[in-house]
Amino acid sequence: MIFYDCSTAPSPRRARMFIAEKGLEIETRQVSIAEGAQLKSEFLALNPRATLPVLVLDDGTVLTENLGIAACLEALHPEPPLLGRNPAEKGLVAMWTAIAEQQGGQPVAEVFRNGNPHMKGRAVPGPQDHDQIPALVERGRARVATFFELIETRLQNSPFLATDHFTLADMTAFVFLDFARVIRTRIPENNRATRTWFDNISARPSAQI
Amino acid sequence: MIFYDCSTAPSPRRARMFIAEKGLEIETRQVSIAEGAQLKSEFLALNPRATLPVLVLDDGTVLTENLGIAACLEALHPEPPLLGRNPAEKGLVAMWTAIAEQQGGQPVAEVFRNGNPHMKGRAVPGPQDHDQIPALVERGRARVATFFELIETRLQNSPFLATDHFTLADMTAFVFLDFARVIRTRIPENNRATRTWFDNISARPSAQI
Repeated sequence: MIFYDCSTAPSPRRARMFIAEKGLEIETRQVSIAEGAQLKSEFLALNPRATLPVLVLDDGTVLTENLGIAACLEALHPEPPLLGRNPAEKGLVAMWTAIAEQQGGQPVAEVFRNGNPHMKGRAVPGPQDHDQIPALVERGRARVATFFELIETRLQNSPFLATDHFTLADMTAFVFLDFARVIRTRIPENNRATRTWFDNISARPSAQI
Repeated sequence: MIFYDCSTAPSPRRARMFIAEKGLEIETRQVSIAEGAQLKSEFLALNPRATLPVLVLDDGTVLTENLGIAACLEALHPEPPLLGRNPAEKGLVAMWTAIAEQQGGQPVAEVFRNGNPHMKGRAVPGPQDHDQIPALVERGRARVATFFELIETRLQNSPFLATDHFTLADMTAFVFLDFARVIRTRIPENNRATRTWFDNISARPSAQI
């Protein structure tokens, strides 16, 4: 297997964390988004959608998208289970992962991509350029605030987002909340359950790499 | 189990189709989005995020999000497999489902929610109102056009999006492409592989309900 990573970007960080939590060592190649390496012909031949992470299996199968990589690795290496141990848990992990992606990660990315001067023309990931839409910055900030309250309510009643143990849903929300520093947004002081959960995950070895 | 459905909306249609493909009969309750029933206190007590579909398990677990419902039902009822039969296929199904959601469904929804006069204030699903952003209509249409070419290229080389058989990835793309009628967009005439794929899925009993 070969894992294509970018050490500065949130999406490949999710896969990197998943691989570390599984205890796997996979040959890794860095693709520098800062240098636009994901838009060069060599990488586009591998993933024409120009996104990271990418995992190439030994049979040559090319997997993109975090959910694709996670589903494959969970099936190959079931321990420790990161996508749920039974049908109800599998449902809850997939559900909270989707909520974290769509209601947390997406608005953080919209604020960053549509508001940061360095992202001009790069408002949507992929090979096509799209102009920034400044109105998405304000909408995104409002949605991020809603997401903070959503997960605080959940974490006041559950040690982890989806189940009673650490899963892909926690990794997903953690990575996007940590990335929210680029839009100068932090977990509100009063959201104590979220802050405790965040600090605990930050201390895991998989969060240090 | 109880399945909360809305017969006019694309997201619950994905779950309805998945249930039908599994050959399951689940007690179903309609929630009329046209009448705003998803925003009433009775439904918000079930799903405070005000989205459909919802599946309530016999133990009371409430699953929202299509991926959550699909992951649980696949684990409970493995046949026929709709999320892949082996690790590589599981990866490919999750990957193409994510691509269909983010690069197909999301821009179709953005054009509809930000451009249709009936969706004023409802630009984002959920209990909060958000103003429409007209610039998302143009961006969304450009992204839908890109998605048509993306899947045409794929379907010229594969009978189905993810693997050699029908999976959740096909359901996802099919439902969003069919829903694209609300933004007056159809599969381009020249995209023959996509049209054949679409017509074949339309003929399945699960697409008729």
